[in-house]
Amino acid sequence: MNSKDIVYLNGRLVPRAEARVSVEDRGFVFGDGVYEVLRAIKGRLFATRFHNERLKRSLDGLRISLAGNDTPERFVDIGRQLLRENGLQEGEATLYMQVTRGAATRVHTFPPSDVAPTIYISVARFTPYAEQAGSGTSAISHPDLRWARCDLKTLNLLPNVLASQTAKERGAFEVMLIRDGVVTEGAKTNFFGVVNGSLRTHPSDNHILPGITRSVLRDLARALDIELDETPIRVDEIPRVSELFLSGTTTDVMPVVMLDDKPVGTGKPGELTRKLQRVLAESLSSGGD
Amino acid sequence: MNSKDIVYLNGRLVPRAEARVSVEDRGFVFGDGVYEVLRAIKGRLFATRFHNERLKRSLDGLRISLAGNDTPERFVDIGRQLLRENGLQEGEATLYMQVTRGAATRVHTFPPSDVAPTIYISVARFTPYAEQAGSGTSAISHPDLRWARCDLKTLNLLPNVLASQTAKERGAFEVMLIRDGVVTEGAKTNFFGVVNGSLRTHPSDNHILPGITRSVLRDLARALDIELDETPIRVDEIPRVSELFLSGTTTDVMPVVMLDDKPVGTGKPGELTRKLQRVLAESLSSGGD
Repeated sequence: MNSKDIVYLNGRLVPRAEARVSVEDRGFVFGDGVYEVLRAIKGRLFATRFHNERLKRSLDGLRISLAGNDTPERFVDIGRQLLRENGLQEGEATLYMQVTRGAATRVHTFPPSDVAPTIYISVARFTPYAEQAGSGTSAISHPDLRWARCDLKTLNLLPNVLASQTAKERGAFEVMLIRDGVVTEGAKTNFFGVVNGSLRTHPSDNHILPGITRSVLRDLARALDIELDETPIRVDEIPRVSELFLSGTTTDVMPVVMLDDKPVGTGKPGELTRKLQRVLAESLSSGGD
Repeated sequence: MNSKDIVYLNGRLVPRAEARVSVEDRGFVFGDGVYEVLRAIKGRLFATRFHNERLKRSLDGLRISLAGNDTPERFVDIGRQLLRENGLQEGEATLYMQVTRGAATRVHTFPPSDVAPTIYISVARFTPYAEQAGSGTSAISHPDLRWARCDLKTLNLLPNVLASQTAKERGAFEVMLIRDGVVTEGAKTNFFGVVNGSLRTHPSDNHILPGITRSVLRDLARALDIELDETPIRVDEIPRVSELFLSGTTTDVMPVVMLDDKPVGTGKPGELTRKLQRVLAESLSSGGD
């Protein structure tokens, strides 16, 4: 039950309906901020250290300085408190943490240093995509129209919004973004594929978000002696992709069995996909903080 | 005097300090919205028809539908009311109009159709950059990191924010953005240059915003029998640029006499620049609605 629906905003716990920010907040007028989404299972948060590191990296990339005792670690503690306050200590939930450059008279350049960042933290009930994870799901290819710093997890999400909507309208779970003739990632996930027996994914550079689940999978694959080749899949290789899956904090390992209305490989989740899906699930059921 | 500082938010005129939006507004979490900035001189707004058309085009591009009797024309009327309410009918002012896809539980895909867009309209005192317009100003070249739909005037402005801050820290007025070896535009303006005697600017495509002042200048140039060649200036041509200026709603025609700490041409505003600056000023002093 999430009857109370309490969120955190700038030092206070408030009902979601009363959580409001200035129209001059730079999040509202410029998308000038960053965020993270964490997974909670039975009140335990996963990969907090990795999410905190990535949040710091995004803040550094945008040159947003947190005030005195504000730290990503503290935000996670507030997240735990919100899970308790909202009765989300059983079952699954997500934790959303957002930092913007604060509210100030609208000018593109940074506001005076005494303008404090806006901190917004929220939790929500989450239902895993169990059916899709079992039978596999579908994706459509889509041009990657995003900017050149996709490695930063920012609020400038319009291309992701528009691509996700296109996917939804075409009955697909995710978009496979294509830039300069290669697969980069999804609108909300990273993409992995098997080509000629090799597991491939886009390298971690300025064109993809360094996914936390992507990193976890790389470690899990290594432990299983599965080699991960970080050479992007070229568009001309797509017809030869025998397995395809996407990874993400809320999607885990999600088999993609249809791409642009054509079956991928046998049209069923592949063997390697299943194996990684299994070991990630084991890691999630035993892990957490 | 702007002592009252009243803004418009979702059907109400409210003091700016009380104008607040939900943390779930898609402007705040996705930058999912569009905006326009208009110029007012002595209470007269300029190029309202062009700004309204561009706002509609941006809304269409994002597939945001305005509710019943909300139209850009109505927003401009509200803007006129705000100019009166805030005592900005003398001197110069700017009118800011923003529309987001509204507030709803955070998912990338569009919210249900009953979620109304958020409308925020605001006015502010404006002081033209008279000194820089006289002596000319400086710019620095900077990689154009933006997405592939720069023709839409959206709230996803992080690359513009970061580039503008870099310019400020290097003592420059604007950045000259470079993509694929050509000059696209500035972070807040369009760029024009004279190369081998020809006036050049980037064509109106997905890599630049179709500037209103840019359009006005094209018409004014035509009336003066000055040919405007919409072939982008290549990076290798920059050393041969004899005149450089930028255009925008608040910058008018702004001579750029220093680029990357080197003089442009003679290091003084050029003849063609001065001519266009003059005719644009005449158009502003006689025009308006």
